[in-house]
Amino acid sequence: MKDNIAVIGLGKAGLPLAGVIAENGFEVTGVDIDSGRCEAINRGENPIPEEAGLSELIKRHGGKRLVATSDYGAASGCNVFIVIVPLFIDEFQNPDFGIMERAFRGVGRILAKQDLVVLETTVPPATTETRVRQWLEAESGLSLSAGEFYLAHSPERIMTGVSISRLREFPKVVGGVDIESGARALEVYEQFIPDMHQVSSARVAEFIKIIEGCYRDVNIGLANELLKIADTLEIDFYEAREYANHEYCHIHLPSTGVGGHCIPVYPWFLVKEMERLEKFSHSRLLRASREVNDEMIGYWAEKIVTRCMRVEKPLNEVKICVKGITFRSGVKELYHSRNLALAKFLMEKGLDVYVYDEMFAEEEILELGLKFIEPVDADFVFDSFQLVMI
Amino acid sequence: MKDNIAVIGLGKAGLPLAGVIAENGFEVTGVDIDSGRCEAINRGENPIPEEAGLSELIKRHGGKRLVATSDYGAASGCNVFIVIVPLFIDEFQNPDFGIMERAFRGVGRILAKQDLVVLETTVPPATTETRVRQWLEAESGLSLSAGEFYLAHSPERIMTGVSISRLREFPKVVGGVDIESGARALEVYEQFIPDMHQVSSARVAEFIKIIEGCYRDVNIGLANELLKIADTLEIDFYEAREYANHEYCHIHLPSTGVGGHCIPVYPWFLVKEMERLEKFSHSRLLRASREVNDEMIGYWAEKIVTRCMRVEKPLNEVKICVKGITFRSGVKELYHSRNLALAKFLMEKGLDVYVYDEMFAEEEILELGLKFIEPVDADFVFDSFQLVMI
Repeated sequence: MKDNIAVIGLGKAGLPLAGVIAENGFEVTGVDIDSGRCEAINRGENPIPEEAGLSELIKRHGGKRLVATSDYGAASGCNVFIVIVPLFIDEFQNPDFGIMERAFRGVGRILAKQDLVVLETTVPPATTETRVRQWLEAESGLSLSAGEFYLAHSPERIMTGVSISRLREFPKVVGGVDIESGARALEVYEQFIPDMHQVSSARVAEFIKIIEGCYRDVNIGLANELLKIADTLEIDFYEAREYANHEYCHIHLPSTGVGGHCIPVYPWFLVKEMERLEKFSHSRLLRASREVNDEMIGYWAEKIVTRCMRVEKPLNEVKICVKGITFRSGVKELYHSRNLALAKFLMEKGLDVYVYDEMFAEEEILELGLKFIEPVDADFVFDSFQLVMI
Repeated sequence: MKDNIAVIGLGKAGLPLAGVIAENGFEVTGVDIDSGRCEAINRGENPIPEEAGLSELIKRHGGKRLVATSDYGAASGCNVFIVIVPLFIDEFQNPDFGIMERAFRGVGRILAKQDLVVLETTVPPATTETRVRQWLEAESGLSLSAGEFYLAHSPERIMTGVSISRLREFPKVVGGVDIESGARALEVYEQFIPDMHQVSSARVAEFIKIIEGCYRDVNIGLANELLKIADTLEIDFYEAREYANHEYCHIHLPSTGVGGHCIPVYPWFLVKEMERLEKFSHSRLLRASREVNDEMIGYWAEKIVTRCMRVEKPLNEVKICVKGITFRSGVKELYHSRNLALAKFLMEKGLDVYVYDEMFAEEEILELGLKFIEPVDADFVFDSFQLVMI
């Protein structure tokens, strides 16, 4: 019997996956709380136009092999449930499981014997085997240890803009909460992901994704720290980086910090867990790199103000344009955007700050409570992505 | 006129370079304070047998095209001086320029107009343009700004064991203290290094080498930190690392810390310089990774003692063998060896510690004030390179 697959969460990570699964010949039920989004998908409209290749998939399968709905009941005929909903962290850097708990309780209510549930959202280690299992067992009345359902973790490895090619070409791992779950999840995923690898447990699978993010955060932190040192020593950081990098050296690019849903969040999963276990010294480097990255907006703000002193106007009359407010170039997403935080920080200092971003129309900028300007009309332009002052 | 080249310092970095230059058809005068070493080289004997390909070069050129001497006067006919002597740091992590100053003052005394001097030793930024220039000008009476001699920095990029192939295949950079010096140094080096690149200044060249080391130190620190976290969470770090690493992720291998002359030293060059300039927040990550790496011996010592508790003997009677005491596998070098530090730390705790290292004979171990044991005779073996407890 062909697997009938539900994808819970049709966001930047879930929708490309749902599209790829449909493209591989499966009937897919997509569940998302945003009913407007579901209707658009069912009309064949792609809500994430910047995702290369996704529009074709949604046009071909939306409302046909891929049916989107806000009703979990519509997925009750499915035997595979892939959950890929956001996990936010609160102001104290603790994960807020609210959205995820609602999703799994929704799945639990329609879960039948021998069904498989896979979590793709990146989560703190052991989340799948503890919280997720408890939510599913509580709602379904089924027992994992009795072999009544299967549960695994397979971290998404997408990157907005290239998610489809990542799904088709990148290695992907899956680990079960028990051996049978891992084997069953591998069997299912191998039908639509070419390069699948089973690891020994769900916890290892969770950890794999977290440490990828930690590697990125620490190395961006290192690049930012080295940029500050190079500037202090009047050395061109980019020239030095070009020649330092080779087969064994991968110094990253500096930035205004690290934004988005992933990299600035994952290190906290480990830092907070080590705090809980009172192993404070086990996450010193992760914490330091988080701090270095978050403090970069202060560094850039001081550089911007210093340069604005050269404009022949009182400081608070210099029209400053922050060009680029998304967390990453080419992705229309403001979550944890350090570029936006930089603009707001300069505003708090009483400066005359405007923003420009090629992904946002003037009215969208205004709706964010920001002032819009064309770069050409500003006295001073800071390009957030190129880190260039014009 | 063919350049006549002197290489000052015939250690692990200088001797392979001298051999490669001689191999390219140049007359090379090698200067080293160790006269016994010089005599051996002149007899065609290689004092660094673990360096692949070096024995052939020394056999072919030692005492012929490559003449080693302890007398700077013997190099007075040379017009190119390459200095590649060690730079140590003291107990407060400040560089000790003593050896380097003596070398440059030795060169300064025989320096003639239009000669080129190149420093290859990795040094704190701006050392070439400040200290080195002053030593040379003071001894020679020549003026760099008057164009009377040329001065540049070209950081060695060797790695004991593969130094010859590094010199033949790896990109190498050079930067002058002024434009003419950079151009002249490039011209000379291109005659024996195939992949030379000129950068804008000696300071940039210095910085390039330092940040390569910082990248390594921070990433080894990250690996060590993630290993501790994985252990705490009962996750197999090596399994997770295998699947986390891909084109954009290069998580390093954990260790007992970082030893040798290079990686544990270079971050301090930047940390100390930032301290001197009172930019304390500019080196937080570099300092944290130094600390994480240095503290790994405490972590391993606790793990070793915990495992020794399972041996049916009083703790201080368990014969513990630390297998591998050099700073890196395959290199007979104990400088900053964390494996040796680990053995000594366990001894300080009153444990019955022995060591074994395939590069050291029993009598050499005894001369170091350590006890020798064959691993098979020990109750417990810690393999420092594999991080395995047997």
